Amino acid sequence: MPPAQKKGVLHGFRRATGVGAAPGTIDRGPEPISSQCRITRISFNIENAEEEVIDTVGELNEDVPADRVYWFRLEGTVNTDTLQQLGDAFGLHPLALEDVVNTHQRCKVEDYDEYLFIVIRLPVCDAGGNLTTEQVSLFVGDNFVVSIHEGSNALDPVRERILWARGRIRELKSDYLAYTILDTVIDNYFPVIEEIGNRLNSIDELLEGGFAQSHRLEIRNVRSDLLLLRKTIWPQREAIAALLRDDCKLIHESTRTYLRDCYDHTIQLMDVTETYRELCADLRDFHLADISYRSSEVMKTLTVIATLFMPLSFIASFYGMNFKRMPELSSSFGYPTVILVMASVASAFLLFFRRRGWI
Amino acid sequence: MPPAQKKGVLHGFRRATGVGAAPGTIDRGPEPISSQCRITRISFNIENAEEEVIDTVGELNEDVPADRVYWFRLEGTVNTDTLQQLGDAFGLHPLALEDVVNTHQRCKVEDYDEYLFIVIRLPVCDAGGNLTTEQVSLFVGDNFVVSIHEGSNALDPVRERILWARGRIRELKSDYLAYTILDTVIDNYFPVIEEIGNRLNSIDELLEGGFAQSHRLEIRNVRSDLLLLRKTIWPQREAIAALLRDDCKLIHESTRTYLRDCYDHTIQLMDVTETYRELCADLRDFHLADISYRSSEVMKTLTVIATLFMPLSFIASFYGMNFKRMPELSSSFGYPTVILVMASVASAFLLFFRRRGWI
Amino acid sequence: MPPAQKKGVLHGFRRATGVGAAPGTIDRGPEPISSQCRITRISFNIENAEEEVIDTVGELNEDVPADRVYWFRLEGTVNTDTLQQLGDAFGLHPLALEDVVNTHQRCKVEDYDEYLFIVIRLPVCDAGGNLTTEQVSLFVGDNFVVSIHEGSNALDPVRERILWARGRIRELKSDYLAYTILDTVIDNYFPVIEEIGNRLNSIDELLEGGFAQSHRLEIRNVRSDLLLLRKTIWPQREAIAALLRDDCKLIHESTRTYLRDCYDHTIQLMDVTETYRELCADLRDFHLADISYRSSEVMKTLTVIATLFMPLSFIASFYGMNFKRMPELSSSFGYPTVILVMASVASAFLLFFRRRGWI
Amino acid sequence: MPPAQKKGVLHGFRRATGVGAAPGTIDRGPEPISSQCRITRISFNIENAEEEVIDTVGELNEDVPADRVYWFRLEGTVNTDTLQQLGDAFGLHPLALEDVVNTHQRCKVEDYDEYLFIVIRLPVCDAGGNLTTEQVSLFVGDNFVVSIHEGSNALDPVRERILWARGRIRELKSDYLAYTILDTVIDNYFPVIEEIGNRLNSIDELLEGGFAQSHRLEIRNVRSDLLLLRKTIWPQREAIAALLRDDCKLIHESTRTYLRDCYDHTIQLMDVTETYRELCADLRDFHLADISYRSSEVMKTLTVIATLFMPLSFIASFYGMNFKRMPELSSSFGYPTVILVMASVASAFLLFFRRRGWI
Amino acid sequence: MPPAQKKGVLHGFRRATGVGAAPGTIDRGPEPISSQCRITRISFNIENAEEEVIDTVGELNEDVPADRVYWFRLEGTVNTDTLQQLGDAFGLHPLALEDVVNTHQRCKVEDYDEYLFIVIRLPVCDAGGNLTTEQVSLFVGDNFVVSIHEGSNALDPVRERILWARGRIRELKSDYLAYTILDTVIDNYFPVIEEIGNRLNSIDELLEGGFAQSHRLEIRNVRSDLLLLRKTIWPQREAIAALLRDDCKLIHESTRTYLRDCYDHTIQLMDVTETYRELCADLRDFHLADISYRSSEVMKTLTVIATLFMPLSFIASFYGMNFKRMPELSSSFGYPTVILVMASVASAFLLFFRRRGWI
Repeated sequence: MPPAQKKGVLHGFRRATGVGAAPGTIDRGPEPISSQCRITRISFNIENAEEEVIDTVGELNEDVPADRVYWFRLEGTVNTDTLQQLGDAFGLHPLALEDVVNTHQRCKVEDYDEYLFIVIRLPVCDAGGNLTTEQVSLFVGDNFVVSIHEGSNALDPVRERILWARGRIRELKSDYLAYTILDTVIDNYFPVIEEIGNRLNSIDELLEGGFAQSHRLEIRNVRSDLLLLRKTIWPQREAIAALLRDDCKLIHESTRTYLRDCYDHTIQLMDVTETYRELCADLRDFHLADISYRSSEVMKTLTVIATLFMPLSFIASFYGMNFKRMPELSSSFGYPTVILVMASVASAFLLFFRRRGWI
Repeated sequence: MPPAQKKGVLHGFRRATGVGAAPGTIDRGPEPISSQCRITRISFNIENAEEEVIDTVGELNEDVPADRVYWFRLEGTVNTDTLQQLGDAFGLHPLALEDVVNTHQRCKVEDYDEYLFIVIRLPVCDAGGNLTTEQVSLFVGDNFVVSIHEGSNALDPVRERILWARGRIRELKSDYLAYTILDTVIDNYFPVIEEIGNRLNSIDELLEGGFAQSHRLEIRNVRSDLLLLRKTIWPQREAIAALLRDDCKLIHESTRTYLRDCYDHTIQLMDVTETYRELCADLRDFHLADISYRSSEVMKTLTVIATLFMPLSFIASFYGMNFKRMPELSSSFGYPTVILVMASVASAFLLFFRRRGWI
Repeated sequence: MPPAQKKGVLHGFRRATGVGAAPGTIDRGPEPISSQCRITRISFNIENAEEEVIDTVGELNEDVPADRVYWFRLEGTVNTDTLQQLGDAFGLHPLALEDVVNTHQRCKVEDYDEYLFIVIRLPVCDAGGNLTTEQVSLFVGDNFVVSIHEGSNALDPVRERILWARGRIRELKSDYLAYTILDTVIDNYFPVIEEIGNRLNSIDELLEGGFAQSHRLEIRNVRSDLLLLRKTIWPQREAIAALLRDDCKLIHESTRTYLRDCYDHTIQLMDVTETYRELCADLRDFHLADISYRSSEVMKTLTVIATLFMPLSFIASFYGMNFKRMPELSSSFGYPTVILVMASVASAFLLFFRRRGWI
Repeated sequence: MPPAQKKGVLHGFRRATGVGAAPGTIDRGPEPISSQCRITRISFNIENAEEEVIDTVGELNEDVPADRVYWFRLEGTVNTDTLQQLGDAFGLHPLALEDVVNTHQRCKVEDYDEYLFIVIRLPVCDAGGNLTTEQVSLFVGDNFVVSIHEGSNALDPVRERILWARGRIRELKSDYLAYTILDTVIDNYFPVIEEIGNRLNSIDELLEGGFAQSHRLEIRNVRSDLLLLRKTIWPQREAIAALLRDDCKLIHESTRTYLRDCYDHTIQLMDVTETYRELCADLRDFHLADISYRSSEVMKTLTVIATLFMPLSFIASFYGMNFKRMPELSSSFGYPTVILVMASVASAFLLFFRRRGWI
Repeated sequence: MPPAQKKGVLHGFRRATGVGAAPGTIDRGPEPISSQCRITRISFNIENAEEEVIDTVGELNEDVPADRVYWFRLEGTVNTDTLQQLGDAFGLHPLALEDVVNTHQRCKVEDYDEYLFIVIRLPVCDAGGNLTTEQVSLFVGDNFVVSIHEGSNALDPVRERILWARGRIRELKSDYLAYTILDTVIDNYFPVIEEIGNRLNSIDELLEGGFAQSHRLEIRNVRSDLLLLRKTIWPQREAIAALLRDDCKLIHESTRTYLRDCYDHTIQLMDVTETYRELCADLRDFHLADISYRSSEVMKTLTVIATLFMPLSFIASFYGMNFKRMPELSSSFGYPTVILVMASVASAFLLFFRRRGWI
C-alpha cells in the first residue's frame, strides 16, 4: 500500500518535544512506552571479554577499570528516567539526550570534548515490507561506548565479534569499536539497495509486456524509497567526513584509515542511489513515451477505419433515401456504378493512408 | 481560494519605503497604523523576575542595573515615533530600524559591534487558513534584548518560562534569552510542516480514487506553501550559521552549543521541505501520467467500438440501398450470407484487437 | 507584441565595436547619435551645494577645490569626442570608456586604484510597455563621481536630495554619493517586480475561467521578463559584493554598512525573481495539466456517445436492409423485440460506463 | 541538413593518436594531409615591423635579436615533421605538440615555465552554413609567439594592426600580442551569437503563424549550436581566469588589465548563451503547449459534431427499419413528431456544449 | 536486450563481503572462482627488460635489486590465498586488499605512505555487445607496480612498450609506469564514446524516417550507457586530481606533467559524455514532440472526415425513413433540393476547415 510506504518519509520530521518546551527537555511526548528496554554491558580487553545484562542504569558506570573498553548497549525504547541517569553517569549534555529521544534526527557527529555524540540511521524493512529507518545513537568516550537503538538485533554481529572472534576489535580502543558499529550499520544499506535494484529490474521486465497501472505505482514506490535513502545517506557522508576531518583526540590515527573506508562505502551508496534515481526517472519517461506512442497508434487505427467507412456509408445511405424520383435507382447501371464508385473511394483513401505511412 | 493562498509569496517583496527615499528613512508608507502597540519590559536575574507594561518608549532604558537582563517586548504595529525613540535610547542604526519597518526582510544577522540585529520569520496561518510569515526583529545587546513582533502571542512561552519556570534561562545572559526566542520561533515551523505532510497524505489517498480538478488545485497550493517555506528557511540557516561562525563577543561559548542545536533544527526543516517538494512533484507527475493513461484507455474503448461497428453498419446500409436491380436482395441466400459476412468481419476485428492487446 | 517584448533579452549581447578592432577603441558604431547629451556639474560640501549646466567637457575638471565633492552627470547619448575629453580630464582607462559606449555590459565593479569604475543597469519600461534595462556607468574618484546614463531623469531623486534635503549625503564623501546612486537605481527594481507580481496574479485569476491562447502568451512574456531581470540582478550581486569585499581605499568603513544594505536588497530581489520564476513555471505546468485534463474530459464525452449509439445505429441499419426474405421483419414480435434489444444494449453500455467512472 | 549540423558536436572527441600509443606521440593518424601549411614570420619592435614567408621550419628560430617580438604564424594543416622541428627549435614539450595535432582540445592554458601553451577555439561557419569550431594553438615565450591555426585568415586583423596600425601593439611585448590574438578570436563569437539570436527571432515570428515540422527542426539545430557554443566557451572562461590568476612571469601587469576585459567578454558570451538556451527551451515548451492546445481544439470540434449527429442519425435509421408493423410510420403525426424529437435532442446537446464552454 | 544492457549499472554496487563481516575481510563470497589467474613479472631498467611467468606469489618479491623497476601483473580472478600472500609480500593494508576483491569500487587513490593504492575502471564491451567496466587495481611502490585486472589483455600495449619500444618508459621509474597504465586504460574510453556517438548519429538518421518502438529502446540504451560512463569517469577525475595535488613522495615532478595530460583527457571525456547526455535528451524530446505532432495531424484528418460526413449521412438517413407521409419524398424537387443542401453543408464545413488551417 503506497500511502503506508511513504510514511517513512512523511513522518521524518516529527518531534517528540512540544513547541515552546525548554531546550534540552527530555520528554518522550505522546508516544506510548510499551516495549521494554534491555541494557547490556560488554567489557573487554585483549585478554578476555565478558557480557552482563544489567537492570538499572545506576550500575552502568560502576567498577570501570581503565584498561578495559566498555560497551553499554541499550536496546528498545529507553524511558526518560533511564536516560536521565545515563546522562548523570557519563556527564552527557541534555541537548544530546534530547536528540536521543527525538528519534528522527539526521545523521550527525557532535564533539563534546570528553565524548563524541554520533547519530546514524539503520535501514529496516517493517512488517508490511516498507522501507524505514531506525536511529542508532552513540556516545563514544575514552574507554566506553554507549549505544542506544530502538530496534533490537542489528548490532549483534558486533557483539559476536567481540565475544568470539577475538580479532583486531579486542586489541583496539573504543574508537575502533565505534567504527565497527558504524560499519555494521552502513553494511545494512547494501542489501536494501540491491533489493531496490532487483525491483527496478523486475519492473523493467514487466514493462516490456505493456504498461499496467500497478507498474506505475511500483515505480513511484521505488522513487519514494530512493528519496528516503538519499535523504538518509547524504548527511551520513557529512558526518563521517567530520569524524575524519576533525582534530578530535578520541579518534586515533589507525582508526582513521578504517573510517576512510567507511566514507568510501557511503560515497558508493550515494552514487548508486543517484544512479537508481536517474534510472527510475528514465523508466518513467520511457513508459510515458510508450503510453503516448501506443495512444497515437490506437488513434491511427481509429482514423483509418473511420475515414474509410464514413464516406462509403454515406454513399450507401444516400441511395437508401426514399425519394420517388431518383433516376439512378431505376437505371440498370446504377448498382454496378455505385459499387465502382465505392471501390474507387476506398482505394483512394487506402493510397492516401499508405503515403502518410499510417498503414 | 488559491490566489489568496499565494499572496504570502507574491507580496514577499513589498517595500514600505518609496523609491528614491533617503536610505535609513523610517517610513511606514501607505499601510494603515490601526492596531495598537503594546510594550512590556521583563527584567530578571537569577533571583527574581518582574514584568511591567510601559506606556512610552522614553521609559524604556531608565534604571537599568547592570546585573539584570532586560527584555523589551514590542507587540503589534510599532509607530514611527516609538521606533525613533527606541533607536535613540539604545543607539540603534537607522538602517536596522528601516528593516524593522519593512516587515518583508529575509532572515539575517547583522553585527553592529555593541549589539546584534537579528531578523527571523515566524510562520502563521491567517484567518483564511493560508500560510504566511510574520517578521520578528531582535536587538541583542550586552544585557538587553529588544524584540519587535507585529503579531501578538507567539513569544508567550518564553515569557512564561522566565517568569515561572526559573530554569537555565534565569541564570544566563541576554544571548541565551535571544537563543530561546529563536528556538521558540523555529519550533513553530514543525507543526506547520507536519500539517503540510498531512495534506500531502490526504491528497495521495484521494487521488487513489481518481483525479479531480480540486486535487490539482490542492497540489498547487501545497507546492506554493512549500515554496514560501523554503524561501523563508533557507536564509534562516545562513543567519544562524553566521551567529555560530562570527567572532561576535555577545554570544558566549555555552550558548553556541545551543545555537548549534537550533542550526540542526533548521537543517532538518530544510530537509523535510525539500523532500516534500520532491514528493509533491512526484504526486503531480504520477497523476499527470494517470490522466494520460486513462485518456488512452478511453480512446481504446472508442476505437474498439468504432472499428467494430463502422464496417458492419456500412454493410447494413449497403443492402439498405433502394436500387431496383440488386440481385442479392431477391436471392434467398442473400440474408444469411450477409449475416455470415458480418460475423466474420466482427470476428476478424476482435481477433485483431486481442492480438494488439486492446481487449 | 511578444517578439518586441523579447528584444531586450535577444539584443543583450550586441557590441558597438567591430570584430578585430583594437581593444580600447571607443567607437559608437552604426547607431545614430540623435539625442543630445546634457552635462550637469553638481558640487557640494556640508555648507552649500550648487548645480550648473556646462557645455563642453573641457570645463569639467576646472576649479575643483579639494574640500568639495563633485558630481558630473552626463545624460543622453554621449558622443565620442566628449568621452575622449572626459577620459583625458580624469585619466580614465580606454577599456573603461569602451565599456561606457557598449551599453550592454553586465553589472560590474573594476578598481583602477585612483578610481572605481562601476556599471549598473536600470530597469525601465519602454514606450510599448516592454521591460528593458539602461546602463548607468559610474566613475568614483576621491572627490568626484562621474555618472553616464543614456536615459534621463532616473537619478533626479539623488540630485534633489543633494540640493534640497541636506541630509547625510552632504556630510559624507564621494563614496556615499556613489552608494546613493546605486541605491536609487536598485530601488527602481522593486516597482518593476511588484508589477510582474500583479501580472502573475491577474493571469492566475483569468486562468480560473479557462485557458485562452493569450494567457499562454502572457505567461511566456512574464517568463522572458523574469529571465531578463535575473540576468541583470545576478551580476549586480557580485558587483556589490566586490565593493564590500575589496580593500579598496575609496570606500570608507561607514559607507560599507550602507552598501551591506544595498547588498541585502539585491539578494531580496534575486529571491523574489527566483520565486516568481518557479511560480510562473508552476502556473504553466498547472495549466498544461488543465489542457490535458479537459481534453480527456472531452474525449470521454465523445466515447460515451459514440459507444452508445454506434451499436444501436447498426441494429437499426440492419433491419433497414431490403432483403426479400427477412423473417423478423414480417413477424409481429419483430419490432418490439428489436426495441427491447436496443434498450438492453444501451443499458449494458451505460452500466459499463458508470463502473468505469466515465459518467 | 540537421545530422550534418550536429557533426561539430558529435565529432568533438575524436583523437588522432591511437589507443595505447606512447604519450607524447605526434601522429596525425588517418586524416589526409591535403592542404598546404603556410608559415609566416612577423617581427616587430616599436620602430618597424616586417613580414616574411618562410619555407622550412629550420629557419624559424634563426637570427632572433632580443629587442624584437617575433610572431611565427602557421596556417593550414601542419605536417608531423614541421611540428617536430618546431618543437626542437623552441624546446616545446611533446605533450603540448600532441595537443596541437589533436585539434579537438578544450580551451586551456598550460604553463611550461619558459613558455605558455594556450589552446583556444575559433567559431566558424562551414560551407554548408553549419557552425563548427577550429583550434588555435599558441606558444607564448618571452619574445616570441607561435600560432598554429588549421584555418586561414581569421588572424589577419592582428597582422594588419601590427604592420599598418602601429598602435599599442608595437610598443608592448609578446604577452600583449598573445592577448590581441585571444581578443580577436573571442570577438568572432559575437556575430555568431547575434546570428543565432536572429534565427531565434525569426523562428518566433514564424511560429506565430502556426507550427510546422521544419520549425521544430530549426529549434533543435539552434539548441545544438548553443550546446556547442557553451561547451566551447565554458573552458575558455577557466583558461583566461588561469592567465589572470597564475603568477606566471610571462604576463605583465599592464596586460592583465586587458585580459580582465577579455574575461568580461567571455562571461558575457556565457551569459547570452545560457539566456538563449533558456529562451530556446521556452520556445519549444510554448509550442509543445500550442500543439496540445490545438489538438484539444480539434478534438472539441470532432466531439461536438459527433455527439450532435450520432443520436440524430440513430433516430433516422430507427425509422428506416423495414418492419411490417411499426405503428408510428403510418400515423400521420409520426413524421412531425420525429422532427420535433430530433430538434429537442439537438438543442439539448447544444445547450450542454455551451454550458461546458465547448462552443 | 535492454535489461541485459542495464545490468552493468544495476549491479554496480554488489559487495562480495557479507553484512557484518569484519572490516578488511578478504572474501570472494559466493562468486565461483573459475578462471585461472596468470601472474607475470616484468622487470626492467634502462639497459634491458625481461618478463617471466611465475607460479606462486611466494616468488613475487624475491631477488629484487633496487636499480630495476618491477611490474607484477596479475590477470584473471585472483584467489584469496594469492591475495593474502601478495599482501604479506608487499605489506599491503587488508582494507586495500578487500577493495581488490570487491571489484565494483569507484575510481580512487589512497596514499598508504609506502605505496599508493589506485583503483581505475576499464570500459569493455561484453559478448552481447553491452557496455560494462572492469576494475584495474594498482599498488605503486618505490620500485614496483602491482596490477590486478580481472580481464586479460587490455594492458598488453604497456607490456609491449616496455619490452620492445625502449622509450621514455624504460628510463623512468615506477610512477611513470603507473601513469602509462592509467593512460592506457583512459585511452580505452575514447573508442567507446566514439561508438556511442555513432549510435546517436544513426538513431538520428533513422528517426528522420519515422518513429519506431525500437528507436526509443535504443535511445534508452544509449542513455543508460552514458549514465554508466558518467558514473565511472566522474570519480576518475577526482582520483587523478588527487594524484596531482597530493604531496605524495612517490610521484616525481616530471611525471606530474604527464598526469596533467591524463587529467585533461578525463575532463574531455566528461565533457563529451555530458554533451551526449544532453543530445540524447534532446533527441528524445524532439521525437516525443514528433509523436504528439503526428498524433494531432492524424486527429485532424479524422475530424475533417467525420465532421464532413456525419451531417451528410444524417440527411441521407433522414430521407431513408419509412414514414407514410413525408411530403418531400413525393415532391419532384425533393431529390435535387437534398443534393443541393448536402453540397452546401459540405462546402460550409470545408470553408470552416480551411479558415482554421486544418486542410
